Amino acid sequence: MHKNKLNGADHLYLQIAGNLEQMIQNEILKIGDKLPSVRMLSNEYGISMGTAFQAYYYLEGKGLIESRPKSGYYVRFSQKRYPALPAAPKPETLGDSVSVDEMVAAVFKKLSATDITNLALAAPAVELLPLAKLNKSIVHAFRNSPTSCIQYEDVQGNPELRKQVARMAFNWGGKIADNDVVITAGCMEALSLSLQAVTRPGDTVAIETPTFFGIFQVMQTLGLHVIEIPTDAVTGVDLNYLEQAIKKSKIKACVFVPSFNNPLGCCMPDENKKALVELITKHRIPLIEDDIYGELYFGHHRPRCCKTYDTEGWVLYCSSISKSLAPGYRIGWTIPGRFKEQLIRLKMRHTIAGVTITQHTMAHFLGIGRFDFHLKKLRTALHTQQLRYVQGILDHFPADTKVSRPQGGFVLWLELNKKVNTFQLYQEAMKYQVSVAPGRIFSMRNRYSNYIRIGYGRPWGDDVERGIRITGNLVKKMC
Amino acid sequence: MHKNKLNGADHLYLQIAGNLEQMIQNEILKIGDKLPSVRMLSNEYGISMGTAFQAYYYLEGKGLIESRPKSGYYVRFSQKRYPALPAAPKPETLGDSVSVDEMVAAVFKKLSATDITNLALAAPAVELLPLAKLNKSIVHAFRNSPTSCIQYEDVQGNPELRKQVARMAFNWGGKIADNDVVITAGCMEALSLSLQAVTRPGDTVAIETPTFFGIFQVMQTLGLHVIEIPTDAVTGVDLNYLEQAIKKSKIKACVFVPSFNNPLGCCMPDENKKALVELITKHRIPLIEDDIYGELYFGHHRPRCCKTYDTEGWVLYCSSISKSLAPGYRIGWTIPGRFKEQLIRLKMRHTIAGVTITQHTMAHFLGIGRFDFHLKKLRTALHTQQLRYVQGILDHFPADTKVSRPQGGFVLWLELNKKVNTFQLYQEAMKYQVSVAPGRIFSMRNRYSNYIRIGYGRPWGDDVERGIRITGNLVKKMC
Repeated sequence: MHKNKLNGADHLYLQIAGNLEQMIQNEILKIGDKLPSVRMLSNEYGISMGTAFQAYYYLEGKGLIESRPKSGYYVRFSQKRYPALPAAPKPETLGDSVSVDEMVAAVFKKLSATDITNLALAAPAVELLPLAKLNKSIVHAFRNSPTSCIQYEDVQGNPELRKQVARMAFNWGGKIADNDVVITAGCMEALSLSLQAVTRPGDTVAIETPTFFGIFQVMQTLGLHVIEIPTDAVTGVDLNYLEQAIKKSKIKACVFVPSFNNPLGCCMPDENKKALVELITKHRIPLIEDDIYGELYFGHHRPRCCKTYDTEGWVLYCSSISKSLAPGYRIGWTIPGRFKEQLIRLKMRHTIAGVTITQHTMAHFLGIGRFDFHLKKLRTALHTQQLRYVQGILDHFPADTKVSRPQGGFVLWLELNKKVNTFQLYQEAMKYQVSVAPGRIFSMRNRYSNYIRIGYGRPWGDDVERGIRITGNLVKKMC
Repeated sequence: MHKNKLNGADHLYLQIAGNLEQMIQNEILKIGDKLPSVRMLSNEYGISMGTAFQAYYYLEGKGLIESRPKSGYYVRFSQKRYPALPAAPKPETLGDSVSVDEMVAAVFKKLSATDITNLALAAPAVELLPLAKLNKSIVHAFRNSPTSCIQYEDVQGNPELRKQVARMAFNWGGKIADNDVVITAGCMEALSLSLQAVTRPGDTVAIETPTFFGIFQVMQTLGLHVIEIPTDAVTGVDLNYLEQAIKKSKIKACVFVPSFNNPLGCCMPDENKKALVELITKHRIPLIEDDIYGELYFGHHRPRCCKTYDTEGWVLYCSSISKSLAPGYRIGWTIPGRFKEQLIRLKMRHTIAGVTITQHTMAHFLGIGRFDFHLKKLRTALHTQQLRYVQGILDHFPADTKVSRPQGGFVLWLELNKKVNTFQLYQEAMKYQVSVAPGRIFSMRNRYSNYIRIGYGRPWGDDVERGIRITGNLVKKMC
């Protein structure tokens, strides 16, 4: 028996697990195949039994293998068994009488109810967040800056926090100075102020479809018209369609989520991002880039941003820590390029300044490297959860169900049989205390009535499995 | 010698000080009069020497008497020596080339600069705020609600905090339930959202003149037209003028500061508040009531609010803790009456929800009665500071200076000789690191160019005296 080769950098068990994962994905090991015993693995790789166990625990954690009592480990899952991708959106229109607003209100009303298995959220479960470490940073903040924590913060935001945000931009190739950054109350305020900075009531703005309902709802509030640009499940915004739309209509701004779009999960390839920035720069159209999921990538590298390619300041980059660390802190930011002065003025006029102590806290938390550390753990956890959720969907949903394959973020986008009205599905599932997000809330035009979004921010467990099973069974009944 | 009578409730020294204060105000004791020696006072009232000293220290603290070495205590100040009140505003217009926006930006840019004696602010000095007690409430919040402090807060606001706000409303005769309250990011967001709830771009809104610049600046941002209603230095908004304006123009809302208006300091009498609510109710015009200074009264009772008299829900009451406790917490609220649903929806669309941990903290701080306790101390401190500042102005400003007599709040409004351009005065004073707020920033119409606002939130001391002396001398030079 020859010894497999290992090389230096990674932990041993990770290397071994990686080799096995590769074999499963290439179907060298197929579903149901028995894996080598721990003792054999230990002999073959010249490693301790402990390390061999670690490798299997890891793969088990990712949902790729399972242990059967008194028998050993078996392959449970393979990429090839992945369901088909959802089709490109078709502009179908449903005459259902419930408005999108009413649906959103219904679905997100009971956010804090603990008796509901909430698969409608696109947010991390609290178990995944570093509560104790954050609280240490709070105490550090009020001990080290006692008087400033109680007083008005700079309108533009805490200077130290802006420095940390500028530093993070380095990861996506941004050359950003602290003075380029404006701190906001979460990404939502960043988007709202950015829209106000570059449009007036009556203007037309391009968005993706499907997209996060918060984006078109704030536009309605600001009196803006919306053009929906078709978005591919893998490559994102259709740039040809966008260019045609620009030629036909007077588009005053675009609001896109280029990395891990919510709900599609798609991530525009770097070259598309670059082409998009060239297009909007040529036409002098501000691009509001919502990068709230950008740090939650599952691959080896952080995706670039449109802002990475922005040489003339037409991109207003928006992000926050709400999806990765502390939704309740309401800390976000924008790097608004040439619109900075307008943005600061708007912020001052609507709210004067942000909360001081949470900004101090975050500046400390980022400054000592805890955020980077936390993100590494969170990415692994989310990736594992996603795989588990997809398995659950395969196990319990009808065979014709199509599922997105996001390489980051929080959500799966499911295309169901055309017969399924997912708002009805939502209502039926709620009778069992299970909540999923019906597709129609992701468009202003009553599209996606047979789609649902399932968030996998909640760690896998019996309650989640029950939720997916119940939803799957309801779908089967409705077909 | 007969003994003066004292009755039970108050501290002895306060009763004695109160008697003496009365005598000074009635000019029974005049400026320069020698007060009874401590021993005489002790004999006359049958009190200890210590209590007699306490009474004199208290009056000295209020600036009413002064001690002269080896001689005793003398009357220093009397109400009768108060300067004249500023005249009712005249609609004069100055062709000065600096815009109000530019002036506001200049005056409030260096908020956090510590080398400047800032008399332009309407905010409490940090020495007056209970830092340590607040920090205890923060720790209580994250220890007792560890997971909820990190997560999204209810859009409408923390339920316990809303309950406390509803309880506070009892002090001004409001019958408010926790479900009537919406928590906001300070009073400014409350005003901005209230305006958005009741107007559309192009509408006309009535405001006081002079008034806080933030009010008309957010209106400009929202595309609203403004009508300025003359406001009396003592009784507030001219109701007859308002009624005429309502008949002439299509007024869609009013935004008034009925208690301790900034910068005038006036407080509408209860009957005027009642009449105002009747007027706007009759015409179905929403009244946005900014009550941010309402708790900072110097008299025996908290002034009523317009909301007190609002039976049909046309008053959107707005307030915050920014002026009384913690500007940096950005906690305010609105009680929006019949516009509640719109308001909650707007809040969700612009910022999703408020910061969670600061709301938990405030709910605790209010719940255990610390806010009431703090307010009592703060009111006394502010009243004392106001008297000291007025003395300083009398000592150092020309004799024709007119000064407001606010019975609460933070600011004095000074009318100077017509020859004085107060934006120039501001610029001159800044050369000496002294900042005062020029009158023109309190109107959109270039009024009040010979007025200044002086905030007395900073405790009296050598730096403040220097600031007032320098400003006064500059005024003398400019006349």
